[in-house]
Amino acid sequence: YKRSHHSVGIIGAPFSKGQPRDGVEKGPDLIRAAGLVEKLKAQGCAVKDYGNLTFEEVANDEPVGRVKRPRAVGSANKRLSAAVHAVKSDGHTCVMLGGDHSLAIGSILGHAASKAELSVVWVDAHADINTPLTSPTGNIHGQPMSYLIHELQSKIPVLPNFSWIKPCVSAKDIVYIGLRDVDPEEHYILKSLGIKAFSMSEVDRLGIAKVMEQTGDYIFSKVKKPIHLSYDIDALDPSITPATGTPVVGGLTYREGIYITETICQTGLLSAVDLVEVNPKRGRTEDEISSTVSAAVDLIQGCFGKLREGNHSSDYKMPVP
Amino acid sequence: YKRSHHSVGIIGAPFSKGQPRDGVEKGPDLIRAAGLVEKLKAQGCAVKDYGNLTFEEVANDEPVGRVKRPRAVGSANKRLSAAVHAVKSDGHTCVMLGGDHSLAIGSILGHAASKAELSVVWVDAHADINTPLTSPTGNIHGQPMSYLIHELQSKIPVLPNFSWIKPCVSAKDIVYIGLRDVDPEEHYILKSLGIKAFSMSEVDRLGIAKVMEQTGDYIFSKVKKPIHLSYDIDALDPSITPATGTPVVGGLTYREGIYITETICQTGLLSAVDLVEVNPKRGRTEDEISSTVSAAVDLIQGCFGKLREGNHSSDYKMPVP
Amino acid sequence: YKRSHHSVGIIGAPFSKGQPRDGVEKGPDLIRAAGLVEKLKAQGCAVKDYGNLTFEEVANDEPVGRVKRPRAVGSANKRLSAAVHAVKSDGHTCVMLGGDHSLAIGSILGHAASKAELSVVWVDAHADINTPLTSPTGNIHGQPMSYLIHELQSKIPVLPNFSWIKPCVSAKDIVYIGLRDVDPEEHYILKSLGIKAFSMSEVDRLGIAKVMEQTGDYIFSKVKKPIHLSYDIDALDPSITPATGTPVVGGLTYREGIYITETICQTGLLSAVDLVEVNPKRGRTEDEISSTVSAAVDLIQGCFGKLREGNHSSDYKMPVP
Ligand SMILES: [Mn+2]
Ligand SMILES: [Mn+2]
Ligand SMILES: [Mn+2]
Ligand SMILES: [Mn+2]
Ligand SMILES: [Mn+2]
Ligand SMILES: [Mn+2]
Repeated sequence: YKRSHHSVGIIGAPFSKGQPRDGVEKGPDLIRAAGLVEKLKAQGCAVKDYGNLTFEEVANDEPVGRVKRPRAVGSANKRLSAAVHAVKSDGHTCVMLGGDHSLAIGSILGHAASKAELSVVWVDAHADINTPLTSPTGNIHGQPMSYLIHELQSKIPVLPNFSWIKPCVSAKDIVYIGLRDVDPEEHYILKSLGIKAFSMSEVDRLGIAKVMEQTGDYIFSKVKKPIHLSYDIDALDPSITPATGTPVVGGLTYREGIYITETICQTGLLSAVDLVEVNPKRGRTEDEISSTVSAAVDLIQGCFGKLREGNHSSDYKMPVP
Repeated sequence: YKRSHHSVGIIGAPFSKGQPRDGVEKGPDLIRAAGLVEKLKAQGCAVKDYGNLTFEEVANDEPVGRVKRPRAVGSANKRLSAAVHAVKSDGHTCVMLGGDHSLAIGSILGHAASKAELSVVWVDAHADINTPLTSPTGNIHGQPMSYLIHELQSKIPVLPNFSWIKPCVSAKDIVYIGLRDVDPEEHYILKSLGIKAFSMSEVDRLGIAKVMEQTGDYIFSKVKKPIHLSYDIDALDPSITPATGTPVVGGLTYREGIYITETICQTGLLSAVDLVEVNPKRGRTEDEISSTVSAAVDLIQGCFGKLREGNHSSDYKMPVP
Repeated sequence: YKRSHHSVGIIGAPFSKGQPRDGVEKGPDLIRAAGLVEKLKAQGCAVKDYGNLTFEEVANDEPVGRVKRPRAVGSANKRLSAAVHAVKSDGHTCVMLGGDHSLAIGSILGHAASKAELSVVWVDAHADINTPLTSPTGNIHGQPMSYLIHELQSKIPVLPNFSWIKPCVSAKDIVYIGLRDVDPEEHYILKSLGIKAFSMSEVDRLGIAKVMEQTGDYIFSKVKKPIHLSYDIDALDPSITPATGTPVVGGLTYREGIYITETICQTGLLSAVDLVEVNPKRGRTEDEISSTVSAAVDLIQGCFGKLREGNHSSDYKMPVP
């Protein structure tokens, strides 16, 4: 319950080409404008904001098979990967502000480049594990996991600007939380690889406290690896975070969402966080946008030690009359 | 987690005379328009839509005591009863789309006609167990259970067009879930008959997972009887399903509502479902109506094997490059 | 599950000077206009409404240090304290309708004057335990607990019109429920005094049923003292009770809020209730106001025996045809 002393490095990734909806590239600046840096500092973090990445236009980015804009996605993620690697090399816990969830490719690869092996906790309404060949839409934000998992590599075709991508995560080191809109092909993949997944049914059955306890037990049963937390804002219920591209009814409550961050923080192993898919253009009112953005800020604060019971410095002395 | 192979027969019952509010007769067509049949087929069900029943006008349907429109309700339910019996004889799990909850009389009687004995799981903010003599309003949608329970027959007066109705359910074969607006007389009945009821207090105390576990234990403690699930949309919280005649604050969450259907489905004993009290005229906005209708569709999908973790065919083969 | 036979005395305290926002003085009349007295009578309570207190204007009420309007708050609470004492002397369970939460000073002191020692259950998003010297805002509604707790008295400076106030509660006799916005200084106080607190993290971890079980175990581990329940409407989530001065996201659900009252009632030890911080001017729509006010009424009904499973008189006889 003491103030935290985390060192946080923030990267903005204003990229939207992993999906078709304009607006998600505004996420990083909106989340900052809601006071992210100031709030993290106020809770005792050392914060370095690395600013926003810039991504060049990619000409003639025709679909390959069903996969849309592979060249832009491949090249943006390569840049992001280098940036995340640099933040990790500087010794920070990395916070990547998306942008769409295709950015997890670069974020996880950049993170993995600095570490032996990672655990990935993926909090999302969706599994984002379609391969280029199973994807019903071709949008890469529904596919990032497929490129990253060792066990899926024989299923991944060659794509332009993807040759630098080498799988870096084992199926057994992944935990999903919040699933409720999973394609049949994705379900097959999850089951056949034996990936640990707490869908909303499991959250309902076990409660979020047991889910997080079991997540910890699962992740820590062997070697304790650094945790990459990839948090899609659509994991939360659309009543809280409506300003996102693919909202799905029946999501995590705000409280469950925060509880996840509090417990992940308490593992002491959190090494990188993605906060993605905040899309102000999908909010129908100012309230919908600000509720979404402010939940995003709260989740990140929870990742770095903010507690709902309160926090205080260990050297605090009470004033007397 | 595999695709389901249920055979579903759908009956629409556009009937509203068990209560005073216009609009609930639109329920069946709205629920269909939201894609019910297509969605059930997509999840692997064989579906036969028997269409909507038609109900003749009943002239001079004066109240008998407090009971309003007994002749119309009696005759509509007689027709529904025959239709449900036919669907069951065809070998389907029957889905009855209301209309108001007075239709449970015909639905349960038609179902019981084809089976030795039933269990009834009644999911509702209300107990709907007033007798004609205790009902404070006289609306029959608040009374259907009283006509159906063996133990209450000495308390039921003669009503026009009700003579065909013979009780078919034992008090011990009923489970209520979601109660939070129970008349004192109803409460007396529930207690004196020892009927199993999980009010919202019990849902809060136990959690929905334990409620469903105990529901199963209770229902299956003796002979396993076919289950009749009678689902009043007002069981869910008005924040999700506002378009209904008698909303009551403090209801089931969407997730709890779905969890009930998932677990009832998994018993393998579900034999008929009522989905009632969707009333578009009680929604104040298009959003309120569509949220209500779409929850109704989701609940029915949950009854027939749709899982939030996903589903896939057992013969699925992954594409390779 | 029987009808209650509580004797309830109601005091309205239309006072708002413990905080800066106009409107909270309307609370008592709004809660009455929503039918509080009639509803309590209908559930079997004997009710005496003592009406609203009147509070004189205090001239030249300049801040003392940071503390705003100390003279008005001190004098209003002195009056309230006498009124609560009188209600207790008449043998009622006292219901104090605020007004802002600074009124807990007078309510608890007046209650304590008639009893040896009290337990205090404080349901609130906030701890309201800043001392005059730690308060970041100077608003006394964020400080009432500091004046009441024996262990804090060396930290409390002299304030005009506060000399009649003598601490009356031990740190070990307090339980907080619902905390989620606690100042660092408050957190220090809670921890250093070892005060029992169920923040929203604990509500998430344990569930509300276990929280109330542990609350009972903690309170009843020694002598059973009369309970003073001080209920700030902002404990509930702003989606239910938005019309309040300092709403905080991530609050208790309506159901959790009611569950607290049901279980406190069942202890048989409830001796006084505060219901504070309903502020109609903070509601943006009529719906927001009525949802807030009607939750307040429901909470008070829950304190006096209303159950969601229903209630009936022990002498009820069913009508027969
Ligand atoms: Mn995603
Ligand atoms: Mn998603
Ligand atoms: Mn109902
Ligand atoms: Mn009903
Ligand atoms: Mn408060
Ligand atoms: Mn308060």
